[in-house]
Amino acid sequence: MQENSDSLLAGSRHRPLALSPADALRREVCSSDSLSFLMEAHDGLSAAIAERAGFKGLWASGLSIACSFGYRDANEASWRELVDAVERIVDSSRLPVLVDGDGGFGNFNNARLLARKLRERGAAGVALEDSCFPKMNSFVGNHHPLADIDEFCGRLRAVKDTIGKDLVVVARIEALIAGHGMHEAISRAHAYTEAGADAILIHSRSSSADDVLSFARVWQDKSPVVIVPTKYYRTPTSAYRGARISTVIWANHSMRAAVAAMRQVCDRLFAEENATTIEPDIATLEEVFDMFDYDELARAEAQYLHPVTLQQARS
Amino acid sequence: MQENSDSLLAGSRHRPLALSPADALRREVCSSDSLSFLMEAHDGLSAAIAERAGFKGLWASGLSIACSFGYRDANEASWRELVDAVERIVDSSRLPVLVDGDGGFGNFNNARLLARKLRERGAAGVALEDSCFPKMNSFVGNHHPLADIDEFCGRLRAVKDTIGKDLVVVARIEALIAGHGMHEAISRAHAYTEAGADAILIHSRSSSADDVLSFARVWQDKSPVVIVPTKYYRTPTSAYRGARISTVIWANHSMRAAVAAMRQVCDRLFAEENATTIEPDIATLEEVFDMFDYDELARAEAQYLHPVTLQQARS
Amino acid sequence: MQENSDSLLAGSRHRPLALSPADALRREVCSSDSLSFLMEAHDGLSAAIAERAGFKGLWASGLSIACSFGYRDANEASWRELVDAVERIVDSSRLPVLVDGDGGFGNFNNARLLARKLRERGAAGVALEDSCFPKMNSFVGNHHPLADIDEFCGRLRAVKDTIGKDLVVVARIEALIAGHGMHEAISRAHAYTEAGADAILIHSRSSSADDVLSFARVWQDKSPVVIVPTKYYRTPTSAYRGARISTVIWANHSMRAAVAAMRQVCDRLFAEENATTIEPDIATLEEVFDMFDYDELARAEAQYLHPVTLQQARS
Amino acid sequence: MQENSDSLLAGSRHRPLALSPADALRREVCSSDSLSFLMEAHDGLSAAIAERAGFKGLWASGLSIACSFGYRDANEASWRELVDAVERIVDSSRLPVLVDGDGGFGNFNNARLLARKLRERGAAGVALEDSCFPKMNSFVGNHHPLADIDEFCGRLRAVKDTIGKDLVVVARIEALIAGHGMHEAISRAHAYTEAGADAILIHSRSSSADDVLSFARVWQDKSPVVIVPTKYYRTPTSAYRGARISTVIWANHSMRAAVAAMRQVCDRLFAEENATTIEPDIATLEEVFDMFDYDELARAEAQYLHPVTLQQARS
Repeated sequence: MQENSDSLLAGSRHRPLALSPADALRREVCSSDSLSFLMEAHDGLSAAIAERAGFKGLWASGLSIACSFGYRDANEASWRELVDAVERIVDSSRLPVLVDGDGGFGNFNNARLLARKLRERGAAGVALEDSCFPKMNSFVGNHHPLADIDEFCGRLRAVKDTIGKDLVVVARIEALIAGHGMHEAISRAHAYTEAGADAILIHSRSSSADDVLSFARVWQDKSPVVIVPTKYYRTPTSAYRGARISTVIWANHSMRAAVAAMRQVCDRLFAEENATTIEPDIATLEEVFDMFDYDELARAEAQYLHPVTLQQARS
Repeated sequence: MQENSDSLLAGSRHRPLALSPADALRREVCSSDSLSFLMEAHDGLSAAIAERAGFKGLWASGLSIACSFGYRDANEASWRELVDAVERIVDSSRLPVLVDGDGGFGNFNNARLLARKLRERGAAGVALEDSCFPKMNSFVGNHHPLADIDEFCGRLRAVKDTIGKDLVVVARIEALIAGHGMHEAISRAHAYTEAGADAILIHSRSSSADDVLSFARVWQDKSPVVIVPTKYYRTPTSAYRGARISTVIWANHSMRAAVAAMRQVCDRLFAEENATTIEPDIATLEEVFDMFDYDELARAEAQYLHPVTLQQARS
Repeated sequence: MQENSDSLLAGSRHRPLALSPADALRREVCSSDSLSFLMEAHDGLSAAIAERAGFKGLWASGLSIACSFGYRDANEASWRELVDAVERIVDSSRLPVLVDGDGGFGNFNNARLLARKLRERGAAGVALEDSCFPKMNSFVGNHHPLADIDEFCGRLRAVKDTIGKDLVVVARIEALIAGHGMHEAISRAHAYTEAGADAILIHSRSSSADDVLSFARVWQDKSPVVIVPTKYYRTPTSAYRGARISTVIWANHSMRAAVAAMRQVCDRLFAEENATTIEPDIATLEEVFDMFDYDELARAEAQYLHPVTLQQARS
Repeated sequence: MQENSDSLLAGSRHRPLALSPADALRREVCSSDSLSFLMEAHDGLSAAIAERAGFKGLWASGLSIACSFGYRDANEASWRELVDAVERIVDSSRLPVLVDGDGGFGNFNNARLLARKLRERGAAGVALEDSCFPKMNSFVGNHHPLADIDEFCGRLRAVKDTIGKDLVVVARIEALIAGHGMHEAISRAHAYTEAGADAILIHSRSSSADDVLSFARVWQDKSPVVIVPTKYYRTPTSAYRGARISTVIWANHSMRAAVAAMRQVCDRLFAEENATTIEPDIATLEEVFDMFDYDELARAEAQYLHPVTLQQARS
């Protein structure tokens, strides 16, 4: 019973101490021998659903969390709101959570403070991108100034010196997004790895995976490579295995699935003014209650809420 | 341009002062001449989507908000977390928001403090139920002790004395949920109306609408009646119009649609390890960016971010 | 009775609508005919105390709020935490609150979002400084890079276009802090006033008021001048009246008084292991309860908490 | 350097793992061989000051935290706001923090959720009182209904089953406050100890220590006894040692010292309109900056912020 309760309310807190959140994530992300997948989560619902689907780790997406807040993915949400969202995600599953930390919300000092708080909330890792504050979503517009290499390496070193091995630190390279070439991307990968990054996330918004695949070829597995095939989704996964990519992040697919479904149910309810035909297409309340383990609460009431009190309350 | 920005970031703040959030909601909920519909919202996404579907008002659902937090609908979320969620909902649309305030999170003093904060965040109304703290979701289990009538009337009077006409106050009767009869429900409706409630929400978890319809018959439109046809969804809407019901709340359908869709996309991504076949079934990023008006931000950058700065940043 | 409650729990919400928080502050800050004083507040206690002392307005100090959080005044606290602190300050007095908004926590978009939220929380004005994010406290070190004039004017214009007259906007010039001369300060004052600033805060950390007084002389009252005599405290106030200064901000004195007093009581309790000799030197609990109007709660219980319920509770 | 940074920003996070926050507190509170003292803290300032004075543990006071929020000590602050305040206290010192958890903010389920979050924030222990929700400060009025013994034991058992030895659980007995006799207090002490309480806090608002001393006599050290000599402050500390009291809590003295000092400085600044005579009586900014280790930030900038960047920024 307590296990159930813990899985729901305390998430990674109750994973066997032998395997910390960071170690659990390291096992997934930091191995190039097998391809891992991280599923996007932006709230408790999406986290609990991804765990039940079988995924071994979660990606706390900055874009999806911004959307759930009704903010734009341009650092409109404060770092404190990100930490609060991560807490709900961590507490809603037992999976290790890699957090999209944007650029760290400022300089090295903001970045190490964010890392401390993410660790405290039970996150397993943080991805930091070499953008300037405030950032703009990588898929929007053409204005994505890159951070000075040395300044960004300072952010990485400050984070590593602060949290040691308690968080997996992924350095996200925006060079290709910013219109720079492979040479710039590779030289940044070398610098970031030397600064302590555990893995490199090479980001691209091209509709083809050629860029990330050629990066992987040149990089020659000097450290694990993480990719986000949001725009180049047509590439067969075998290509990533062939290139010894470490991890694929499905970065926003639960949010986009929710948007499509909520839009459809809203349109139909507005038009039909009745839920009869909608009911079969949406989750039942029983499925929702089961996902959040309401049974544990009923059992706990029997155990902790004294019969006499229940009696009085019922009468 | 600013209008766009305001609709997104300041919500009801920028509705013409002639029509306050409360008045906008009153027009929907407090008229029995036409049947109104409130659509559930639990975050910025669901709020923005419901507005675009054409709904005239939102229901900030306690159950859906609890689920999005990964909490159980048993007052695990604090009143402060509810207020934060309501702020995101209000800021993500121009629609008036009726907030599910459970029982007020304690006694009359907690209830009036909650009401003050909801008004401050731009909510249009609050529904208070005659349950005891902490409550348990009305659809779960058989332990739903009712509050003493006079004590609950005290909560309603305290709220009305505090916020006057700035919030629509809906009194939610849990008598039928708690297994009491029609007589108890009607006598509570009289007491709550006398205490200042602007409308009565008669809740039922029966699979038939008979209870709420007979309540409406007996109540004889002494004040507007609000219903939540979650379990008795098969009833034709004409029956509600015939009974001069004022408002129907679709209380959890966006959340349940999102659950079903996220579960399906997670299952498919886990099995297929590829997004190619999923892509056509989910919203595009462009649709998401359009919903949150990223264009306004681009226009604003051109207006407020000096060209020279952009130049430097770009170089 | 309700008035008491409102003054305590809803702050400016209940000021006669004829005088909005912004208008109340404008009357104090934006007149050069009489010298006004704003007292620092960093939490509910300091706000309630300043009001009882007779002050007509409050300064929500970034430094003092950072200290109360245990953060350093270098944008370690997120903008959301600042907004939360301001809410507690606003709700604890009826006074208009001018908020130290640092540089706006990023670019024009972050600044206008902050302004919207401060207005929503009942703040009366915001002071924005021409520093870069993250800032460093003006009294610490020698690294205070100034923002590009045009870029900072963009922040001011974005804020004014967003909140109109609902917030008093004070432009804080850090040119003297950054080691630039009077010419730079004056030219920035002109640019910021043209961009819509309602008043100019000319900051200086010199131990003499010569700089701010000569600024006022050159500025010739083109717009109200606000000063912060933290370092040049020896200057007689008559000098400010002579220079037609509009407003003096006592920017951190309550916090510094609290630090000295808490340090002393801690040292004595640690040494004496007894409170007998300390008791006469600290506020009584009765004084504290009176400040937060516990009587109103007792009266409200009699009014709203039904006698029967009280009876049961007491038995 | 990192040590400094950690002491400031990560508090107990960086205490040698050999001694967890709970164990550090246990060593203080749970030994009757020597009398321990816990100093009240309500924010980062008061926590940092108490540590520098030499205290070995902190009491996160519900009353003082409520006052700093401008709330009344009647569960106006939500449990989430308490958790946020505790986070600031924990992060501002290396001392173990015993948190005043009131009655647990509801039933057993609310109490165990609160305990989980306090542990996650780095708290060392929680004191739970046998009051009903919402509570009223023990020093105010005569309406302090006691919780049913078995129901409260259920709260204690639920907390112990959830957090095990990760938090010290102190059971606070309000029987004497509620006007019950010694017999009731002792029988509750037995029940709470059996339910798993690590120590008993016997509360009294009498001006004499007779009640708590006779409790200690009857209790015969069956478990550590904690007292709060706020009203019976005249009793010589030797009497507590003689009665083998384990811990004395100075429950609100920093807050009350701050109130007296802030009131005095506000009155003088309002009357004198000048800070010259006040300056010697308050802490200097240098003392404040030293307390929060601004030097570490300067050193870290030299280490992590690349010279070139500093150069550019300075130019």
